[in-house]
Amino acid sequence: MTLHLTAEQRLDDDVLERAFTLGEIPGILWTPEAASASAPVPLILLGIPPLGLNRMYPRLVARAQRAAAEGFAAATIELPGSGERPRRPVLDRARADLRRAMEAGEPVGDEIVDALVLPLVDKAVPEWQATLDALLALPEIGGPVGYSGGVISIGVRLAAVEPRIVAAGLFAGSLVPRSIVEEARRVSIPLHVLLQWDDEGNDRQASLELFDAFGSKEKTLLANMGGHTGVPQHAGDDAAGFFARHLK
Amino acid sequence: MTLHLTAEQRLDDDVLERAFTLGEIPGILWTPEAASASAPVPLILLGIPPLGLNRMYPRLVARAQRAAAEGFAAATIELPGSGERPRRPVLDRARADLRRAMEAGEPVGDEIVDALVLPLVDKAVPEWQATLDALLALPEIGGPVGYSGGVISIGVRLAAVEPRIVAAGLFAGSLVPRSIVEEARRVSIPLHVLLQWDDEGNDRQASLELFDAFGSKEKTLLANMGGHTGVPQHAGDDAAGFFARHLK
Repeated sequence: MTLHLTAEQRLDDDVLERAFTLGEIPGILWTPEAASASAPVPLILLGIPPLGLNRMYPRLVARAQRAAAEGFAAATIELPGSGERPRRPVLDRARADLRRAMEAGEPVGDEIVDALVLPLVDKAVPEWQATLDALLALPEIGGPVGYSGGVISIGVRLAAVEPRIVAAGLFAGSLVPRSIVEEARRVSIPLHVLLQWDDEGNDRQASLELFDAFGSKEKTLLANMGGHTGVPQHAGDDAAGFFARHLK
Repeated sequence: MTLHLTAEQRLDDDVLERAFTLGEIPGILWTPEAASASAPVPLILLGIPPLGLNRMYPRLVARAQRAAAEGFAAATIELPGSGERPRRPVLDRARADLRRAMEAGEPVGDEIVDALVLPLVDKAVPEWQATLDALLALPEIGGPVGYSGGVISIGVRLAAVEPRIVAAGLFAGSLVPRSIVEEARRVSIPLHVLLQWDDEGNDRQASLELFDAFGSKEKTLLANMGGHTGVPQHAGDDAAGFFARHLK
Protein backbone atom coordinates (compact mmCIF):
# COMPACT_ATOMS: atom_id res chain seq x y z
CA MET A 1 0.00 0.00 0.00
CA THR A 2 1.27 3.46 -0.85
CA LEU A 3 1.32 6.40 1.51
CA HIS A 4 -0.17 9.60 0.11
CA LEU A 5 0.24 12.78 2.09
CA THR A 6 -2.94 14.68 1.29
CA ALA A 7 -2.94 17.89 3.33
CA GLU A 8 -0.77 19.68 5.82
CA GLN A 9 -0.98 22.45 8.36
CA ARG A 10 1.34 23.84 11.00
CA LEU A 11 -0.08 23.76 14.53
CA ASP A 12 0.97 25.73 17.58
CA ASP A 13 4.23 24.58 19.17
CA ASP A 14 5.68 24.12 15.66
CA VAL A 15 4.07 20.78 15.08
CA LEU A 16 3.50 19.79 11.46
CA GLU A 17 0.21 17.92 10.99
CA ARG A 18 -0.19 15.93 7.77
CA ALA A 19 -3.26 13.98 6.72
CA PHE A 20 -2.49 10.86 4.72
CA THR A 21 -4.09 7.86 3.13
CA LEU A 22 -2.55 4.43 3.05
CA GLY A 23 -4.55 2.58 0.40
CA GLU A 24 -8.07 3.40 1.52
CA ILE A 25 -7.14 4.01 5.16
CA PRO A 26 -7.12 7.64 6.33
CA GLY A 27 -4.57 8.68 8.91
CA ILE A 28 -2.76 11.62 10.46
CA LEU A 29 0.93 12.16 11.07
CA TRP A 30 2.30 14.78 13.45
CA THR A 31 5.99 15.65 13.49
CA PRO A 32 7.91 18.10 15.67
CA GLU A 33 9.77 20.86 13.84
CA ALA A 34 13.09 19.29 14.80
CA ALA A 35 12.35 16.16 12.77
CA SER A 36 14.42 15.98 9.58
CA ALA A 37 16.28 13.51 7.41
CA SER A 38 19.44 14.29 9.34
CA ALA A 39 17.72 14.08 12.76
CA PRO A 40 14.94 11.50 12.44
CA VAL A 41 12.73 11.16 15.51
CA PRO A 42 11.11 8.30 17.45
CA LEU A 43 7.46 7.54 16.67
CA ILE A 44 4.44 6.89 18.87
CA LEU A 45 1.50 5.14 17.23
CA LEU A 46 -1.62 6.65 18.78
CA GLY A 47 -4.25 3.94 19.22
CA ILE A 48 -7.81 5.12 18.78
CA PRO A 49 -11.20 3.80 19.93
CA PRO A 50 -13.72 2.80 17.23
CA LEU A 51 -15.42 6.20 17.37
CA GLY A 52 -13.86 7.72 14.28
CA LEU A 53 -10.90 10.00 13.65
CA ASN A 54 -13.04 13.12 13.39
CA ARG A 55 -14.73 12.63 16.72
CA MET A 56 -11.45 11.73 18.44
CA TYR A 57 -9.42 14.48 16.75
CA PRO A 58 -9.26 16.94 19.70
CA ARG A 59 -7.92 14.30 22.07
CA LEU A 60 -5.56 12.85 19.46
CA VAL A 61 -4.04 16.22 18.64
CA ALA A 62 -3.47 16.90 22.35
CA ARG A 63 -1.66 13.57 22.68
CA ALA A 64 0.35 14.28 19.52
CA GLN A 65 1.40 17.73 20.73
CA ARG A 66 2.52 16.22 24.01
CA ALA A 67 4.55 13.62 22.09
CA ALA A 68 6.03 16.35 19.89
CA ALA A 69 7.08 18.32 22.96
CA GLU A 70 9.17 15.27 23.93
CA GLY A 71 10.67 15.20 20.44
CA PHE A 72 8.53 12.34 19.14
CA ALA A 73 6.45 12.03 15.98
CA ALA A 74 2.95 10.59 16.41
CA ALA A 75 0.54 8.97 13.98
CA THR A 76 -2.86 7.37 13.94
CA ILE A 77 -5.13 5.64 11.43
CA GLU A 78 -8.87 5.13 11.23
CA LEU A 79 -9.95 1.69 12.47
CA PRO A 80 -11.72 -0.74 10.11
CA GLY A 81 -15.44 0.06 10.01
CA SER A 82 -15.04 3.42 11.77
CA GLY A 83 -15.45 7.02 10.61
CA GLU A 84 -15.62 7.38 6.83
CA ARG A 85 -14.42 3.83 6.20
CA PRO A 86 -16.93 1.25 4.85
CA ARG A 87 -19.15 -0.23 7.54
CA ARG A 88 -18.30 -3.81 8.50
CA PRO A 89 -21.56 -5.69 9.05
CA VAL A 90 -19.85 -8.28 11.26
CA LEU A 91 -18.78 -5.52 13.67
CA ASP A 92 -22.14 -3.75 13.50
CA ARG A 93 -23.93 -6.99 14.40
CA ALA A 94 -21.56 -7.66 17.30
CA ARG A 95 -22.05 -4.12 18.60
CA ALA A 96 -25.82 -4.54 18.44
CA ASP A 97 -25.54 -7.82 20.39
CA LEU A 98 -23.39 -6.12 23.00
CA ARG A 99 -25.82 -3.20 23.35
CA ARG A 100 -28.74 -5.60 23.69
CA ALA A 101 -26.99 -7.60 26.42
CA MET A 102 -25.98 -4.50 28.34
CA GLU A 103 -29.43 -2.90 28.09
CA ALA A 104 -31.00 -6.15 29.28
CA GLY A 105 -28.55 -6.13 32.20
CA GLU A 106 -27.26 -9.52 31.10
CA PRO A 107 -23.64 -10.58 31.55
CA VAL A 108 -21.65 -10.05 28.36
CA GLY A 109 -20.74 -13.56 27.26
CA ASP A 110 -17.44 -14.64 25.74
CA GLU A 111 -19.07 -15.15 22.31
CA ILE A 112 -20.18 -11.54 22.19
CA VAL A 113 -16.76 -10.26 23.23
CA ASP A 114 -15.00 -12.50 20.73
CA ALA A 115 -17.35 -11.51 17.90
CA LEU A 116 -16.90 -7.84 18.73
CA VAL A 117 -13.15 -7.69 19.20
CA LEU A 118 -11.39 -10.48 17.30
CA PRO A 119 -12.44 -9.49 13.75
CA LEU A 120 -11.40 -5.92 14.55
CA VAL A 121 -7.99 -7.05 15.85
CA ASP A 122 -7.46 -9.41 12.89
CA LYS A 123 -8.07 -6.60 10.40
CA ALA A 124 -6.56 -3.67 12.27
CA VAL A 125 -3.19 -5.14 13.31
CA PRO A 126 -1.87 -5.69 9.76
CA GLU A 127 -3.05 -2.18 8.90
CA TRP A 128 -1.03 -0.71 11.77
CA GLN A 129 1.96 -2.75 10.63
CA ALA A 130 1.59 -1.47 7.06
CA THR A 131 1.36 2.05 8.46
CA LEU A 132 4.58 1.44 10.34
CA ASP A 133 6.28 0.24 7.13
CA ALA A 134 5.21 3.41 5.34
CA LEU A 135 6.03 5.87 8.12
CA LEU A 136 9.44 4.40 8.88
CA ALA A 137 10.27 4.87 5.20
CA LEU A 138 9.92 8.65 5.64
CA PRO A 139 13.35 10.23 6.19
CA GLU A 140 12.21 12.30 9.18
CA ILE A 141 10.88 9.27 11.10
CA GLY A 142 13.49 7.06 12.74
CA GLY A 143 12.69 4.98 15.75
CA PRO A 144 12.28 3.46 18.24
CA VAL A 145 8.50 3.03 18.03
CA GLY A 146 5.95 3.03 20.83
CA TYR A 147 2.25 2.20 20.75
CA SER A 148 -0.18 4.08 22.96
CA GLY A 149 -3.83 3.65 23.93
CA GLY A 150 -6.81 2.73 21.80
CA VAL A 151 -8.53 -0.66 21.80
CA ILE A 152 -6.40 -2.64 24.23
CA SER A 153 -6.73 -5.95 22.36
CA ILE A 154 -5.17 -4.35 19.27
CA GLY A 155 -2.34 -3.07 21.47
CA VAL A 156 -1.80 -6.50 22.99
CA ARG A 157 -1.51 -8.26 19.64
CA LEU A 158 0.71 -5.53 18.18
CA ALA A 159 2.98 -5.72 21.22
CA ALA A 160 3.11 -9.51 20.82
CA VAL A 161 3.77 -9.71 17.08
CA GLU A 162 5.47 -6.48 15.96
CA PRO A 163 9.14 -6.41 16.95
CA ARG A 164 9.62 -2.79 15.89
CA ILE A 165 7.39 -1.69 18.79
CA VAL A 166 9.65 -1.44 21.84
CA ALA A 167 7.23 -0.09 24.48
CA ALA A 168 3.46 0.14 24.80
CA GLY A 169 1.13 2.26 26.91
CA LEU A 170 -2.26 0.54 27.05
CA PHE A 171 -5.65 1.64 28.37
CA ALA A 172 -7.57 -1.16 30.07
CA GLY A 173 -10.91 0.29 29.10
CA SER A 174 -12.61 -2.24 26.85
CA LEU A 175 -13.64 -5.87 26.77
CA VAL A 176 -10.85 -8.37 26.16
CA PRO A 177 -11.35 -11.86 24.64
CA ARG A 178 -9.87 -14.82 26.52
CA SER A 179 -7.62 -15.62 23.55
CA ILE A 180 -6.10 -12.13 23.75
CA VAL A 181 -5.23 -12.75 27.41
CA GLU A 182 -3.32 -15.80 26.18
CA GLU A 183 -1.53 -13.69 23.55
CA ALA A 184 -0.55 -11.29 26.35
CA ARG A 185 1.69 -13.99 27.83
CA ARG A 186 3.94 -13.66 24.76
CA VAL A 187 4.42 -9.91 25.21
CA SER A 188 7.88 -9.09 26.53
CA ILE A 189 8.31 -5.34 25.94
CA PRO A 190 7.96 -2.75 28.75
CA LEU A 191 4.31 -1.88 29.37
CA HIS A 192 2.47 0.96 31.06
CA VAL A 193 -1.17 -0.02 31.64
CA LEU A 194 -3.77 2.55 32.62
CA LEU A 195 -6.90 1.37 34.43
CA GLN A 196 -9.76 3.56 35.57
CA TRP A 197 -10.68 1.77 38.80
CA ASP A 198 -14.31 2.90 38.73
CA ASP A 199 -14.82 2.52 34.96
CA GLU A 200 -18.50 1.56 34.67
CA GLY A 201 -18.09 -0.01 31.24
CA ASN A 202 -15.07 -2.11 32.05
CA ASP A 203 -14.59 -5.39 33.91
CA ARG A 204 -11.93 -4.53 36.51
CA GLN A 205 -11.16 -8.12 37.42
CA ALA A 206 -10.60 -9.02 33.77
CA SER A 207 -8.25 -6.04 33.40
CA LEU A 208 -6.25 -7.16 36.44
CA GLU A 209 -6.03 -10.69 35.00
CA LEU A 210 -4.82 -9.29 31.69
CA PHE A 211 -2.16 -7.22 33.46
CA ASP A 212 -1.06 -10.30 35.36
CA ALA A 213 -0.86 -12.32 32.14
CA PHE A 214 1.60 -10.04 30.36
CA GLY A 215 4.96 -11.77 30.04
CA SER A 216 6.89 -8.49 30.32
CA LYS A 217 9.46 -8.29 33.09
CA GLU A 218 8.88 -4.55 33.22
CA LYS A 219 5.22 -3.63 33.50
CA THR A 220 3.38 -0.94 35.44
CA LEU A 221 -0.30 -0.75 36.30
CA LEU A 222 -1.59 2.71 37.07
CA ALA A 223 -5.14 2.77 38.42
CA ASN A 224 -7.04 5.98 39.14
CA MET A 225 -10.52 7.15 39.95
CA GLY A 226 -12.68 9.32 37.72
CA GLY A 227 -14.61 6.88 35.54
CA HIS A 228 -13.93 5.83 31.96
CA THR A 229 -13.20 9.30 30.61
CA GLY A 230 -11.81 10.80 33.83
CA VAL A 231 -8.14 9.87 33.49
CA PRO A 232 -6.39 12.50 35.65
CA GLN A 233 -3.78 14.87 34.27
CA HIS A 234 -1.00 13.29 36.34
CA ALA A 235 -1.67 9.91 34.67
CA GLY A 236 -0.89 11.58 31.35
CA ASP A 237 2.35 12.86 32.85
CA ASP A 238 3.20 9.30 33.91
CA ALA A 239 2.59 7.91 30.45
CA ALA A 240 4.75 10.65 28.95
CA GLY A 241 7.50 9.75 31.40
CA PHE A 242 7.19 6.08 30.40
CA PHE A 243 7.72 6.84 26.71
CA ALA A 244 10.49 9.31 27.48
CA ARG A 245 12.32 6.51 29.33
CA HIS A 246 11.90 3.96 26.57
CA LEU A 247 12.02 5.87 23.30
CA LYS A 248 14.95 8.20 23.95
CA MET B 1 5.94 14.43 75.82
CA THR B 2 8.79 16.82 75.22
CA LEU B 3 10.91 16.96 72.10
CA HIS B 4 14.65 16.97 72.72
CA LEU B 5 16.96 17.63 69.80
CA THR B 6 20.00 15.51 70.63
CA ALA B 7 22.45 15.81 67.73
CA GLU B 8 22.71 17.50 64.38
CA GLN B 9 24.75 17.31 61.21
CA ARG B 10 24.57 18.97 57.82
CA LEU B 11 24.22 16.53 54.90
CA ASP B 12 24.92 17.09 51.24
CA ASP B 13 22.37 19.21 49.41
CA ASP B 14 22.21 21.50 52.47
CA VAL B 15 19.89 19.27 54.43
CA LEU B 16 20.03 19.62 58.22
CA GLU B 17 19.61 16.25 59.97
CA ARG B 18 18.68 16.34 63.64
CA ALA B 19 18.26 13.33 65.92
CA PHE B 20 15.61 13.77 68.58
CA THR B 21 13.83 11.97 71.36
CA LEU B 22 10.18 12.41 72.16
CA GLY B 23 9.83 10.94 75.63
CA GLU B 24 11.59 7.61 75.14
CA ILE B 25 11.00 7.48 71.38
CA PRO B 26 14.01 8.15 69.14
CA GLY B 27 13.46 9.94 65.87
CA ILE B 28 15.13 11.93 63.11
CA LEU B 29 14.12 15.24 61.55
CA TRP B 30 15.48 16.47 58.22
CA THR B 31 14.91 20.04 57.09
CA PRO B 32 15.95 21.80 53.89
CA GLU B 33 18.18 24.84 54.29
CA ALA B 34 15.35 27.10 53.17
CA ALA B 35 13.23 26.17 56.20
CA SER B 36 13.03 29.00 58.73
CA ALA B 37 10.61 30.66 61.10
CA SER B 38 9.73 33.15 58.36
CA ALA B 39 9.40 30.45 55.67
CA PRO B 40 8.15 27.30 57.40
CA VAL B 41 7.96 24.24 55.16
CA PRO B 42 5.53 21.34 54.65
CA LEU B 43 6.33 18.07 56.40
CA ILE B 44 6.35 14.45 55.25
CA LEU B 45 6.20 11.81 57.98
CA LEU B 46 8.36 8.93 56.76
CA GLY B 47 6.75 5.67 57.78
CA ILE B 48 9.19 2.89 58.61
CA PRO B 49 8.97 -0.91 58.71
CA PRO B 50 9.58 -2.63 62.08
CA LEU B 51 13.24 -3.26 61.25
CA GLY B 52 14.76 -0.44 63.29
CA LEU B 53 15.89 3.09 62.48
CA ASN B 54 19.55 2.14 62.21
CA ARG B 55 18.97 -0.59 59.67
CA MET B 56 16.57 1.59 57.64
CA TYR B 57 18.71 4.73 57.88
CA PRO B 58 20.23 4.65 54.34
CA ARG B 59 16.81 4.36 52.70
CA LEU B 60 15.24 6.92 55.05
CA VAL B 61 17.91 9.50 54.39
CA ALA B 62 17.50 9.04 50.63
CA ARG B 63 13.75 9.63 50.98
CA ALA B 64 14.39 12.64 53.22
CA GLN B 65 16.86 14.19 50.78
CA ARG B 66 14.35 13.75 48.00
CA ALA B 67 11.68 15.45 50.12
CA ALA B 68 14.11 18.26 50.96
CA ALA B 69 14.83 18.79 47.28
CA GLU B 70 11.10 19.52 46.88
CA GLY B 71 11.27 21.95 49.79
CA PHE B 72 9.74 19.61 52.37
CA ALA B 73 10.91 18.65 55.84
CA ALA B 74 10.78 14.93 56.68
CA ALA B 75 10.73 13.06 59.96
CA THR B 76 10.52 9.54 61.26
CA ILE B 77 10.35 7.78 64.63
CA GLU B 78 11.29 4.32 65.82
CA LEU B 79 8.29 1.97 65.98
CA PRO B 80 7.25 0.42 69.31
CA GLY B 81 9.33 -2.69 69.99
CA SER B 82 11.85 -1.93 67.21
CA GLY B 83 15.50 -0.91 67.24
CA GLU B 84 16.73 0.23 70.64
CA ARG B 85 13.22 0.51 72.09
CA PRO B 86 12.10 -2.06 74.70
CA ARG B 87 10.93 -5.34 73.19
CA ARG B 88 7.19 -5.89 73.25
CA PRO B 89 6.53 -9.55 74.06
CA VAL B 90 3.08 -9.43 72.45
CA LEU B 91 4.67 -8.46 69.11
CA ASP B 92 7.51 -10.95 69.46
CA ARG B 93 5.01 -13.76 70.06
CA ALA B 94 2.92 -12.72 67.06
CA ARG B 95 6.02 -12.58 64.85
CA ALA B 96 7.03 -16.06 66.00
CA ASP B 97 3.52 -17.36 65.17
CA LEU B 98 3.72 -15.76 61.73
CA ARG B 99 7.14 -17.24 61.04
CA ARG B 100 5.95 -20.68 62.13
CA ALA B 101 2.90 -20.52 59.87
CA MET B 102 4.94 -19.34 56.86
CA GLU B 103 7.67 -21.92 57.36
CA ALA B 104 5.03 -24.65 57.66
CA GLY B 105 3.52 -23.35 54.39
CA GLU B 106 0.22 -22.79 56.19
CA PRO B 107 -2.12 -19.95 55.30
CA VAL B 108 -1.65 -16.98 57.63
CA GLY B 109 -4.93 -16.82 59.56
CA ASP B 110 -6.77 -13.65 60.55
CA GLU B 111 -5.88 -14.19 64.23
CA ILE B 112 -2.17 -14.13 63.45
CA VAL B 113 -2.47 -10.99 61.33
CA ASP B 114 -4.61 -9.25 63.95
CA ALA B 115 -2.23 -10.21 66.78
CA LEU B 116 0.76 -9.02 64.76
CA VAL B 117 -0.57 -5.73 63.44
CA LEU B 118 -3.31 -4.33 65.67
CA PRO B 119 -1.24 -3.88 68.88
CA LEU B 120 1.44 -2.17 66.79
CA VAL B 121 -1.11 0.18 65.19
CA ASP B 122 -2.76 0.93 68.55
CA LYS B 123 0.54 1.96 70.10
CA ALA B 124 2.24 3.58 67.09
CA VAL B 125 -0.54 5.88 65.84
CA PRO B 126 -0.73 8.03 69.02
CA GLU B 127 3.07 8.24 68.96
CA TRP B 128 3.03 9.58 65.41
CA GLN B 129 0.36 12.06 66.44
CA ALA B 130 2.45 13.22 69.42
CA THR B 131 5.41 13.57 67.05
CA LEU B 132 3.27 15.72 64.81
CA ASP B 133 2.28 17.93 67.77
CA ALA B 134 5.94 18.43 68.66
CA LEU B 135 7.25 18.99 65.13
CA LEU B 136 4.51 21.43 64.15
CA ALA B 137 5.45 23.48 67.22
CA LEU B 138 8.92 24.09 65.69
CA PRO B 139 8.99 27.46 63.92
CA GLU B 140 10.59 26.08 60.75
CA ILE B 141 7.90 23.40 60.23
CA GLY B 142 4.61 24.63 58.83
CA GLY B 143 2.34 22.35 56.91
CA PRO B 144 0.55 20.77 55.18
CA VAL B 145 1.57 17.30 56.35
CA GLY B 146 1.86 14.11 54.32
CA TYR B 147 2.47 10.54 55.47
CA SER B 148 4.57 8.18 53.38
CA GLY B 149 5.32 4.46 53.44
CA GLY B 150 6.00 2.16 56.36
CA VAL B 151 3.56 -0.37 57.80
CA ILE B 152 0.45 0.22 55.71
CA SER B 153 -2.01 -0.42 58.55
CA ILE B 154 -0.44 2.43 60.55
CA GLY B 155 -0.79 4.66 57.49
CA VAL B 156 -4.43 3.68 57.05
CA ARG B 157 -5.38 4.51 60.63
CA LEU B 158 -3.38 7.76 60.62
CA ALA B 159 -5.06 8.79 57.37
CA ALA B 160 -8.45 7.96 58.89
CA VAL B 161 -8.05 9.68 62.27
CA GLU B 162 -5.47 12.49 61.92
CA PRO B 163 -6.98 15.53 60.17
CA ARG B 164 -3.62 17.32 59.89
CA ILE B 165 -2.47 14.69 57.37
CA VAL B 166 -3.73 15.85 53.98
CA ALA B 167 -2.22 13.21 51.66
CA ALA B 168 -0.73 9.76 52.12
CA GLY B 169 1.57 7.59 50.03
CA LEU B 170 1.21 3.98 51.19
CA PHE B 171 3.15 0.82 50.36
CA ALA B 172 0.93 -2.25 50.11
CA GLY B 173 3.66 -4.56 51.28
CA SER B 174 2.48 -6.10 54.53
CA LEU B 175 -0.42 -8.05 55.99
CA VAL B 176 -3.56 -6.04 56.71
CA PRO B 177 -6.20 -7.00 59.32
CA ARG B 178 -9.84 -7.10 58.19
CA SER B 179 -10.71 -4.35 60.68
CA ILE B 180 -8.14 -2.04 59.07
CA VAL B 181 -9.83 -2.60 55.70
CA GLU B 182 -13.01 -1.34 57.37
CA GLU B 183 -11.15 1.70 58.72
CA ALA B 184 -9.96 2.39 55.16
CA ARG B 185 -13.56 3.19 54.17
CA ARG B 186 -13.38 6.28 56.41
CA VAL B 187 -10.27 7.64 54.70
CA SER B 188 -11.07 10.59 52.45
CA ILE B 189 -7.70 12.23 51.72
CA PRO B 190 -5.85 11.76 48.40
CA LEU B 191 -3.88 8.51 48.35
CA HIS B 192 -1.01 7.12 46.32
CA VAL B 193 -0.70 3.38 46.88
CA LEU B 194 2.34 1.45 45.75
CA LEU B 195 2.01 -2.29 45.13
CA GLN B 196 4.78 -4.64 44.04
CA TRP B 197 2.78 -6.98 41.80
CA ASP B 198 5.15 -9.92 42.32
CA ASP B 199 5.82 -9.32 46.03
CA GLU B 200 6.34 -12.83 47.42
CA GLY B 201 5.53 -11.83 50.99
CA ASN B 202 2.35 -9.94 50.24
CA ASP B 203 -1.21 -11.03 49.44
CA ARG B 204 -1.95 -9.20 46.19
CA GLN B 205 -5.69 -9.80 46.30
CA ALA B 206 -5.89 -8.39 49.83
CA SER B 207 -3.98 -5.31 48.71
CA LEU B 208 -6.39 -4.78 45.82
CA GLU B 209 -9.34 -5.12 48.21
CA LEU B 210 -7.79 -2.60 50.56
CA PHE B 211 -7.26 -0.15 47.69
CA ASP B 212 -10.87 -0.63 46.66
CA ALA B 213 -12.07 -0.01 50.21
CA PHE B 214 -10.50 3.44 50.61
CA GLY B 215 -13.21 6.08 50.70
CA SER B 216 -11.00 8.67 48.98
CA LYS B 217 -12.36 10.19 45.79
CA GLU B 218 -8.79 10.68 44.63
CA LYS B 219 -6.69 7.54 44.89
CA THR B 220 -4.02 6.03 42.67
CA LEU B 221 -2.71 2.48 42.62
CA LEU B 222 0.73 2.07 41.10
CA ALA B 223 1.77 -1.55 40.63
CA ASN B 224 5.19 -2.59 39.38
CA MET B 225 7.34 -5.66 39.03
CA GLY B 226 10.59 -6.29 40.88
CA GLY B 227 9.57 -8.05 44.09
CA HIS B 228 9.16 -6.62 47.58
CA THR B 229 12.33 -4.54 47.57
CA GLY B 230 12.47 -3.86 43.83
CA VAL B 231 10.38 -0.68 43.61
CA PRO B 232 11.65 0.96 40.41
CA GLN B 233 13.16 4.44 40.36
CA HIS B 234 10.26 5.84 38.34
CA ALA B 235 7.81 4.81 41.08
CA GLY B 236 9.77 7.03 43.45
CA ASP B 237 9.41 9.86 40.93
CA ASP B 238 5.65 9.27 40.89
CA ALA B 239 5.37 9.41 44.66
CA ALA B 240 7.41 12.62 44.70
CA GLY B 241 5.04 14.07 42.11
CA PHE B 242 2.06 13.07 44.26
CA PHE B 243 3.38 14.93 47.31
CA ALA B 244 4.43 17.90 45.20
CA ARG B 245 0.84 18.17 43.97
CA HIS B 246 -0.72 17.94 47.42
CA LEU B 247 1.71 19.63 49.81
CA LYS B 248 2.62 22.73 47.81
